[in-house]
Amino acid sequence: MANDKKMVDQITSMDEDFAKWYTDICKKADLIDYSSVKGCMIIRPYGYAIWELIQANLDRRFKELGHENVYMPMFIPESLLQKEKDHVEGFAPEVAWVTHGGSEPLTERLCVRPTSETLFCEHYKNIINSYRDLPKLYNQWCSVVRWEKTTRPFLRSREFLWQEGHTMHATAEEAEAETVQMLNCYADFHETDLAIPVIKGRKTESDKFAGAEATYAIEALMHDGKALQAGTSHYFGDGFARAFDIKFTDKENKLCYPHQTSWGVTTRMIGGIIMTHGDNNGLALPPAVAPIQVVIIPVQQHKEGVLDAAYALRDRLAGQFRVKVDDSDNSPGWKFAEYEMKGVPLRIEIGPRDIADNKCVTVMRHNREKNFESLENIESIVAERLQAVRDGLYARALANRDSKTYECTTIDEINEALKTKGDGLVMAMWCGEEECEDKVKELTGVGSRCIPLEQKNISNKCVCCGKEAKHMVCWGIAY
Amino acid sequence: MANDKKMVDQITSMDEDFAKWYTDICKKADLIDYSSVKGCMIIRPYGYAIWELIQANLDRRFKELGHENVYMPMFIPESLLQKEKDHVEGFAPEVAWVTHGGSEPLTERLCVRPTSETLFCEHYKNIINSYRDLPKLYNQWCSVVRWEKTTRPFLRSREFLWQEGHTMHATAEEAEAETVQMLNCYADFHETDLAIPVIKGRKTESDKFAGAEATYAIEALMHDGKALQAGTSHYFGDGFARAFDIKFTDKENKLCYPHQTSWGVTTRMIGGIIMTHGDNNGLALPPAVAPIQVVIIPVQQHKEGVLDAAYALRDRLAGQFRVKVDDSDNSPGWKFAEYEMKGVPLRIEIGPRDIADNKCVTVMRHNREKNFESLENIESIVAERLQAVRDGLYARALANRDSKTYECTTIDEINEALKTKGDGLVMAMWCGEEECEDKVKELTGVGSRCIPLEQKNISNKCVCCGKEAKHMVCWGIAY
Repeated sequence: MANDKKMVDQITSMDEDFAKWYTDICKKADLIDYSSVKGCMIIRPYGYAIWELIQANLDRRFKELGHENVYMPMFIPESLLQKEKDHVEGFAPEVAWVTHGGSEPLTERLCVRPTSETLFCEHYKNIINSYRDLPKLYNQWCSVVRWEKTTRPFLRSREFLWQEGHTMHATAEEAEAETVQMLNCYADFHETDLAIPVIKGRKTESDKFAGAEATYAIEALMHDGKALQAGTSHYFGDGFARAFDIKFTDKENKLCYPHQTSWGVTTRMIGGIIMTHGDNNGLALPPAVAPIQVVIIPVQQHKEGVLDAAYALRDRLAGQFRVKVDDSDNSPGWKFAEYEMKGVPLRIEIGPRDIADNKCVTVMRHNREKNFESLENIESIVAERLQAVRDGLYARALANRDSKTYECTTIDEINEALKTKGDGLVMAMWCGEEECEDKVKELTGVGSRCIPLEQKNISNKCVCCGKEAKHMVCWGIAY
Repeated sequence: MANDKKMVDQITSMDEDFAKWYTDICKKADLIDYSSVKGCMIIRPYGYAIWELIQANLDRRFKELGHENVYMPMFIPESLLQKEKDHVEGFAPEVAWVTHGGSEPLTERLCVRPTSETLFCEHYKNIINSYRDLPKLYNQWCSVVRWEKTTRPFLRSREFLWQEGHTMHATAEEAEAETVQMLNCYADFHETDLAIPVIKGRKTESDKFAGAEATYAIEALMHDGKALQAGTSHYFGDGFARAFDIKFTDKENKLCYPHQTSWGVTTRMIGGIIMTHGDNNGLALPPAVAPIQVVIIPVQQHKEGVLDAAYALRDRLAGQFRVKVDDSDNSPGWKFAEYEMKGVPLRIEIGPRDIADNKCVTVMRHNREKNFESLENIESIVAERLQAVRDGLYARALANRDSKTYECTTIDEINEALKTKGDGLVMAMWCGEEECEDKVKELTGVGSRCIPLEQKNISNKCVCCGKEAKHMVCWGIAY
């Protein structure tokens, strides 16, 4: 099949070694480089351009929902980190500690922020006094540090880029609504713009964020059948407000504690894009976050008029799309492979015969579908093709997830499904007891990912103990 | 004079206590807050919005000049920092050291980046092999840490936000041209968009960046007669390339060292805006970086039709300008003072009589000039007024600098000028000897700021030793 023809042999095949396939793409699509700083990555121009597009898209969404950006210090004094008990227990084991400024030891050591709840709370205590000061809808874009033992580019690195929203509300209801609103914001961004289908759900008690009352997450299924937590949104109740003594006077002049949320997504999303859409020819980018959406490859470019036609086409498209002409001396074949590796959604080939016919050829990256197009309305044709790429990527990812989602009613069924059909998501009922949650993981290898917001009554009994079931849980192997 | 009428009494007057006036504006215009992290600041939404506008403007300029953004790790292993001798000597005394990850001591301590030359060089060694790989024109937006003893918001803080460009070129000429190009880019941004006149110059040997062959800077004069270094651009020659063993094969297949530059501006620019344009009523923002360019204040807003007219006006202007209606219950007088404090360039007042006449009132922040305008062509009127604000701010800053710039030919003249006319910039000739440079500072209190690119032959003799002069130097008291 022409569509499956492998044009380059630069990367390890996915079936041969998935982990190596992944890092091959990270390196060979020029997304990252390593340095002597262990566990941290260099994000190269092509990788960073993807992040800038993600950032601009989400930042616009956040601002439309009324959020404002701020910047907090990157350090947290040890005593401040310790103010909320659960929070410090969750994070202290994995923070980087600054102990010296220049040659002098610090009187109190500082951690490099792993997340900034404590800093936001200290600030909120200063600026929240009355119900008129609420809600506070703050967000920050920054890097954070978590001292992980095992690291992988984008998926788990000691330093990563992210945004962290931190909001304060007069009532629990408002804060809960914000938590769900931001979960939906992340889900819509993933589905619409990243073409990644996600399951929205609530984490079980054992899997909540340190200090949260409820943690919501979106989970996506990767090519290899493993689950990626792609974004989280937390509801804190008034726990931090009490620990930090943040109070406001309500309309009846009564002193109250405000209710809090936080929510974040990270550069990990780039890992999710790679492992959802990539193939053995390299990266495949959803058009919304592709630094180059259309690459124009001149064919027989040394013939008169070819380059001029390519530039003219670029100039027509440049107002609407991110477009590039590759007029380098490399062969068209090399260029085809190069931009497939880089995941450029749409390739346009234009040569002397096309020009004579006022035509060009378009090739979609994800399925290599080739079309001969009139140059007449090329702007609208390109817009349609890019939409088709997004829709095609999404449909393929959804079909992959469907084929790897198993409804099971017993532990045996789970083991059988995983054995015969491979790693994937298991949907099975749960009684709500942590003991059963642990036992399922022990006996099958899949842990609880989340309690999907969209529930289905697969059975009335817990898949583990057989007692009355409370929830359908989505189980999987986590990245 | 109505124009000088002080509407609020919230901030310390500039003449009374300049330092307090400055921090009052930082706090009361809601730019920053303090936290328990000593020497670091919280940049609040209004302050951060200014930074976002600065960032977007400069980022567009950098990209138009062919630069690409990347992201390097925030940590530098001690051994990497030590690779370039002058560089480590310059920075080691003022870095924050990470010594532990979680509960475990690190085998090698890491500093939090004070600047990233060493990281870029390590990466460049990996990716530069041939002349085809050059130039490399990289930039990053991030925060850096320098463990300062004395700190002030924006001007000098232990952590600050900045951009750092790092470029590699095949020849010294190209790298030198890049250094000057970026200096010019900074100067144009300051003059055109921040309305701050600057002097472009080269630093003397004693004042160069650690490891650089030449450091260029732009210097601006603040209200109090002190000089602010507002941006720097460094030419490194091939010093770092040799220290890091970065080599490329040129067109003749010869191994060569590339030539390097770096350049940066920081959140310090916001301090420069405050101290150049601010007055006793608060901040005065140049329109290009004002989060709110136009504030519409409804007068007698409870009368029928007033708020509707204000909203309609906002909707007309919103496509072209950053505009806000303040429809809160505060009095118009309170609102006038509030948006003067926040430095909003243009205020529009609209009340029942204006509406009946199809008119409104505009008031420019910087000089309180009041105009009755027809609503007919209000879009073009607002555009003109905003340009007038920028031009007015610039002219005022330039006049202030001119009145505080003293050409002197002897040490006595310098002391006399500073004594009678106050702190300012001294233009005086210099023989080029470090001894004289030091002596001028010792005898007059002003140090060499830079050797202006635009030279003038004030005299043939060094202001200090009387020997033959090599350069006119700009001397001043540095922030």
